[in-house]
Amino acid sequence: MKSYRIAVVGATGAVGQEILRTLERREFPVSRLVPLASARSAGKKVAFAGREIPVEELRDEAFAGIDYALFSAGAARSRQFADACKKAGAVMIDNSSAFRMRDDVPLVVPEINAGDLAKHRGIIAVPNCSAIILGVPLWPLHRAAHLERIVVSTYQSASGAGAQAMAELEAQTRAFAAGTPLERSVFPHQIAFNVFSHNTAIADNGYNEEENKVIEETRKIFHEPALPIVATCIRVPVLRAHSESIVIETRKPLSPEEAREILSRAPGVKLVDDAAANHFPMPIEASGQHDVLVGRIRRDLSRTDGRGLALFVAGDQLLKGAAWNAVQILEHLTS
Amino acid sequence: MKSYRIAVVGATGAVGQEILRTLERREFPVSRLVPLASARSAGKKVAFAGREIPVEELRDEAFAGIDYALFSAGAARSRQFADACKKAGAVMIDNSSAFRMRDDVPLVVPEINAGDLAKHRGIIAVPNCSAIILGVPLWPLHRAAHLERIVVSTYQSASGAGAQAMAELEAQTRAFAAGTPLERSVFPHQIAFNVFSHNTAIADNGYNEEENKVIEETRKIFHEPALPIVATCIRVPVLRAHSESIVIETRKPLSPEEAREILSRAPGVKLVDDAAANHFPMPIEASGQHDVLVGRIRRDLSRTDGRGLALFVAGDQLLKGAAWNAVQILEHLTS
Repeated sequence: MKSYRIAVVGATGAVGQEILRTLERREFPVSRLVPLASARSAGKKVAFAGREIPVEELRDEAFAGIDYALFSAGAARSRQFADACKKAGAVMIDNSSAFRMRDDVPLVVPEINAGDLAKHRGIIAVPNCSAIILGVPLWPLHRAAHLERIVVSTYQSASGAGAQAMAELEAQTRAFAAGTPLERSVFPHQIAFNVFSHNTAIADNGYNEEENKVIEETRKIFHEPALPIVATCIRVPVLRAHSESIVIETRKPLSPEEAREILSRAPGVKLVDDAAANHFPMPIEASGQHDVLVGRIRRDLSRTDGRGLALFVAGDQLLKGAAWNAVQILEHLTS
Repeated sequence: MKSYRIAVVGATGAVGQEILRTLERREFPVSRLVPLASARSAGKKVAFAGREIPVEELRDEAFAGIDYALFSAGAARSRQFADACKKAGAVMIDNSSAFRMRDDVPLVVPEINAGDLAKHRGIIAVPNCSAIILGVPLWPLHRAAHLERIVVSTYQSASGAGAQAMAELEAQTRAFAAGTPLERSVFPHQIAFNVFSHNTAIADNGYNEEENKVIEETRKIFHEPALPIVATCIRVPVLRAHSESIVIETRKPLSPEEAREILSRAPGVKLVDDAAANHFPMPIEASGQHDVLVGRIRRDLSRTDGRGLALFVAGDQLLKGAAWNAVQILEHLTS
């Protein structure tokens, strides 16, 4: 069996670590693994396939001989090293927002638009985590009944902002338990016992960066450049996995029973919709899972024409929202 | 100045305690305060106006000589003692769901429908906390542009389920910090670091009790029995104050600037909408405030006709969502 030389850029970060674990779990054939990070982290070791591998400094020369480079080190690093990666002949699978909306860069969720991979010219982008978790359960409903509008409100975990943000929530929690002041440095507001509007800048249209990503990226992934979407992105004091409250309008009527039947056999989705037990998607249950959990599927009570549904979903934004989606792309490219 | 004999039923509970504090803060003229609770709590003392007042057992005879009885002891107790209250000539101001949808019971948020108070026949109901926090900021927009649809997703704090639920979130938080197992007895699911669909039964229409209350009670308060509303009610690990992500459709176009101007002078509302500072409504800032905080006011990007807005609100569900709304009603009835 063929095996591949893989670089993981940002190997010590929250998503980089999940990429290493996912490559192991999937038994992806790696002939050589090169963990890359900033000079600060160089020399640290990461665990992979039973070995301890020293982290190398992220430099142009680091991509020599690499087949695929999985980037999770932020948009600035992706922009800085994209050329070096290309010159070395390595294909870039990028978790950052740097190239997502570029026409020559496929933006891919394999369950939705794996076909776009064929058009890549050296860079493939992994969408924003909230867009992926929205798209996976909505795509099969779109195919069945054609979505005409999406209204989504998110419940996003701290780890979406990285390992330090998760540590900040834990530290504030410990401070609360100890009765000491809650300190913050990562988030602009207290995250423990609070919720707040996503900590990205507000654009001229009144929407923050995260909301605009959800809207624009979903349209690109779905090949529906005018799909009407309104998004509200909110941080909640959850360590891991994002949840989303969704209301959709469809061109064709779609009953909750039909939607449930479609989702029960859709790829990447797991139905958790037990009204009798009051058991629905929750972030603590979505954590560590590849699938997006979907439930609370019900008629939109504000409509009488049967062309609306409400649902609630939860997905691990470090896995399906980032690392697992990147490794899925890698598996598609090498299969 | 006239003063009044007031009974507080459920005086040791989360809302009952807030009623006592609110009567003090408002310097409401109380000639006699009778704190009532179950036999289990009788003999305990509650603080009021600088005194310690013994809690009396909730019995039919307890209402003798009372002018107004403020009930916050659950729907079963309200049903059980409504007749005794009436026979004693006391007016019942009820925080429970027992009588809210009865035709002969006004359901009142004073900023919206204080006029309905005149029609009372001995019982006035305080709406569900999420319905109040939704209604206060939407009412002035409804008057200006006529709401044709409301889509709301809630971020509800633990204290909405009472003092024990708040204690459970704190206990799970301490257990997390200590590295011991997280135990639960109040909520069906872990509340610390988790979000879950509201812990009330799912009705035949697919909506839980809380969602159906938000929908039906908002229609009654607004005198709009057919107003289309779709609600998703979610618990979040916040100690106090509920938040809500809202999308509205209006009959007349309404710009974010117009909405901001209307809300800046609306009663019971405080505009918190500072995009430059990324400062919007948050439950930790709404806690302890009478006003509902409102912000993130922006155009609904999924519409092109200017007839839609998105917004985010946060309100103290123990105060405006319960105790303060009840005391406001009391003040209206006695003014």
